[in-house]
Amino acid sequence: MTERKNIAIMGAGLVGSLLSLYLAKRGHKVDLYERRPDLRKTSVDGGRSINLALSDRGWRALKGIGIEEDVRKVAIPMYGRMMHDEQGNLTYQPYGKEGQAIYSVSRGGLNMALMNLSEPNPDITYHFGRQAMDVNLHSNEVQLRNIETGSVETVQPDLLFGADGAFSVVRGAMQKTERYDYQQSYLEYGYKELTIPATADGGWVIEKNALHIWPRGNYMMIALPNFDGSFTCTLFFPYEGERSFASIKSEEDLLAFFREVFPDAVPLMPDLAQEYFSHPVGSLVTIKCFPWSHKGKSLLIGDACHAVVPFYGQGMNAGFEDITVLDQMLDTFDGEDWEELFHRFERTRKPNADAIADLAVMNFIEMRDKVADPRFLLRKKIEARISEQYPGKWLTLYTMVTFSELPYSYALETGKVQDRIMKQVMKHIKSVDDYNKPEVQQLIERELLKKEKLS
Amino acid sequence: MTERKNIAIMGAGLVGSLLSLYLAKRGHKVDLYERRPDLRKTSVDGGRSINLALSDRGWRALKGIGIEEDVRKVAIPMYGRMMHDEQGNLTYQPYGKEGQAIYSVSRGGLNMALMNLSEPNPDITYHFGRQAMDVNLHSNEVQLRNIETGSVETVQPDLLFGADGAFSVVRGAMQKTERYDYQQSYLEYGYKELTIPATADGGWVIEKNALHIWPRGNYMMIALPNFDGSFTCTLFFPYEGERSFASIKSEEDLLAFFREVFPDAVPLMPDLAQEYFSHPVGSLVTIKCFPWSHKGKSLLIGDACHAVVPFYGQGMNAGFEDITVLDQMLDTFDGEDWEELFHRFERTRKPNADAIADLAVMNFIEMRDKVADPRFLLRKKIEARISEQYPGKWLTLYTMVTFSELPYSYALETGKVQDRIMKQVMKHIKSVDDYNKPEVQQLIERELLKKEKLS
Repeated sequence: MTERKNIAIMGAGLVGSLLSLYLAKRGHKVDLYERRPDLRKTSVDGGRSINLALSDRGWRALKGIGIEEDVRKVAIPMYGRMMHDEQGNLTYQPYGKEGQAIYSVSRGGLNMALMNLSEPNPDITYHFGRQAMDVNLHSNEVQLRNIETGSVETVQPDLLFGADGAFSVVRGAMQKTERYDYQQSYLEYGYKELTIPATADGGWVIEKNALHIWPRGNYMMIALPNFDGSFTCTLFFPYEGERSFASIKSEEDLLAFFREVFPDAVPLMPDLAQEYFSHPVGSLVTIKCFPWSHKGKSLLIGDACHAVVPFYGQGMNAGFEDITVLDQMLDTFDGEDWEELFHRFERTRKPNADAIADLAVMNFIEMRDKVADPRFLLRKKIEARISEQYPGKWLTLYTMVTFSELPYSYALETGKVQDRIMKQVMKHIKSVDDYNKPEVQQLIERELLKKEKLS
Repeated sequence: MTERKNIAIMGAGLVGSLLSLYLAKRGHKVDLYERRPDLRKTSVDGGRSINLALSDRGWRALKGIGIEEDVRKVAIPMYGRMMHDEQGNLTYQPYGKEGQAIYSVSRGGLNMALMNLSEPNPDITYHFGRQAMDVNLHSNEVQLRNIETGSVETVQPDLLFGADGAFSVVRGAMQKTERYDYQQSYLEYGYKELTIPATADGGWVIEKNALHIWPRGNYMMIALPNFDGSFTCTLFFPYEGERSFASIKSEEDLLAFFREVFPDAVPLMPDLAQEYFSHPVGSLVTIKCFPWSHKGKSLLIGDACHAVVPFYGQGMNAGFEDITVLDQMLDTFDGEDWEELFHRFERTRKPNADAIADLAVMNFIEMRDKVADPRFLLRKKIEARISEQYPGKWLTLYTMVTFSELPYSYALETGKVQDRIMKQVMKHIKSVDDYNKPEVQQLIERELLKKEKLS
């Protein structure tokens, strides 16, 4: 048991809330400071909140604190991608093996569940409506403005965790330290959320257990199921250009465009125009930085140090995995040298954070463009055959990222090697049956041997 | 002739000063604002200032305004690298063909020369001791603090140029605009400047017309000649680790280390310990950002938008090339749409700025490590033979960057292709004579054909 510390967590989002449970379990006193009001008391956006895809890394962190089953009750499994073409035809592609799924959960719902689970703990205290104004990394003092009263208080925890997201105030203070590596990069795409409502009796009007995609080359729409029968759709669309947020100026523009490119979705979206013109356009940022800690007194975690674009569905999962990894390190920590511990954490996680950031950008191209290509779908089938034939020797990149706990950096590197092999193999493939041709079998055999030698 | 504009340039360094000449030539009124006092009146660092390597791109920009010959008088040609090993043995490697050289010039001297050339121009006014406090990109107002009096004045130019270096205040304002891409990354190396003084009669104690390198694996020292007979040495050294700035704590540590690894330099550096412990450690940053302009009213140029590490000797040259490219665009500019002009400039230069940033980091590894390797030197000789035999078809990467005006991005890409070919070729090479072996000749012939098809 290490010495009990007074810990402040900036941000009571998903990562901050889950982290509080893990730290309190180890006997520390935890205060969470959150700019926004209590989600549970203020109904945000009429109760309909966006959803996220929870996968193995996320589940593992929930399981580690014993709350997996509570969350599973409100999570909807999605076993594959359902692609919608421009005529409304559907093609289905499973994500993994029989039974493997990613899970649609409501961000707000999951956040509230984590708050409800942690708040009764006498060692955990939530403070809402507190905006971090300034962080002094030297003294570990944080100035917090009470949003209701306008008064400013100062807290000075033993340890400060920055779980305050892509625009982290704690990171802002670190950015001012000497020789700080920092990168923010935006895609030239924004996103807008739209809705496919539930049927009158609360059912789902399109396949419930799938992630729906309308891939259209340089843009796309996706839809994830909600527990109430609705789907939250997200349009990923260029800011500028011939077909872009900038080019759609009127309801006529909007409807003409949607009827042409998403014809099967339009009848399912009765509030399309009203939502389109009232919902904001969100931006898509990748944040990379280093180090993540300062003098063993403050540490960044989750989006605060590695915000990624959403296309691999791994943002929350990567943040939760941070907590799992930190908790494993705490298992063997003697409580003495927090600086060394934080350094070990940041050095371990940084290559994986960089890898998932790059994978997420790569997957955008796959989702919006390639999934509509018959050659790509054929390749996926051939790769599934290889994976079946050589179970221990070939996991698809998607499986490594989503259904395993292999480091993201290993997944990225192995994915590149496998990509080169698949390019070789596909030269010999016109249909799934070609997989059995002797030259294909020999090629795969040979390349797998080479791959093993590499690793 | 376009409409006469009131232009403010933030920063009267090398790029700002040269830019003022180009803009005044086109009939604009130019004011330069510089935080530091007038170099020509305040003797900085006892008159000894650091030196830079001027190469073809830089010369071209000087020539474009008719001041090439003035600068050539105070520039020292360096025709190659002189490598010093741990026993003090020398190896020489020419940079290019007979007569090709990079030129050592004093930063301060060149800056003063540019000021002296531009200040008599009635359309150019220098304002020293003015620190930019705040830039309003919307109104183009800049708040300037007079460092002597403390008073603050506001200027509002038609066009604002940010030539204010790696820590640009103008870029700082752009960073706060929406969806701004920004990256700062530091090497884990710092640098310290030291001196090899002139002989009593003002001569050079080591070869004058070379860039000297003491490559030592993960660190190195270099020396460039000054006009007064001295050399400015720069030690590039890790901040932390077994052999690092952190590990040298006393004069004994310092001398033991220098005597072991730079034995031939120690007797030439009488002020070594005094300089080492009084000179600061400089950091090595790469800055990448985008866009470089805002609404056709402000534009970044030089280090302000693309600071690079110094290992390719291209920082100043790249900044000067910005000016050449902008000037070429002004040749056909009708004076109407500055926004479009600035967009064209930033789109043209950005890939080249990114390329030289990456090349500069790559060259650090070559300089500190590989130049001491006999296989590397052999490879350089073989490459020189290829270049001789196929003059139009093979320029070395160093030549493309340093002795040509080919875009940096083209140099980087072509360099990668040539690197792959050289790796193939070197499998067949044990000595320079092997170059004539038929299989080597055939291999080169074949690879050159492939390379031509690619381009």
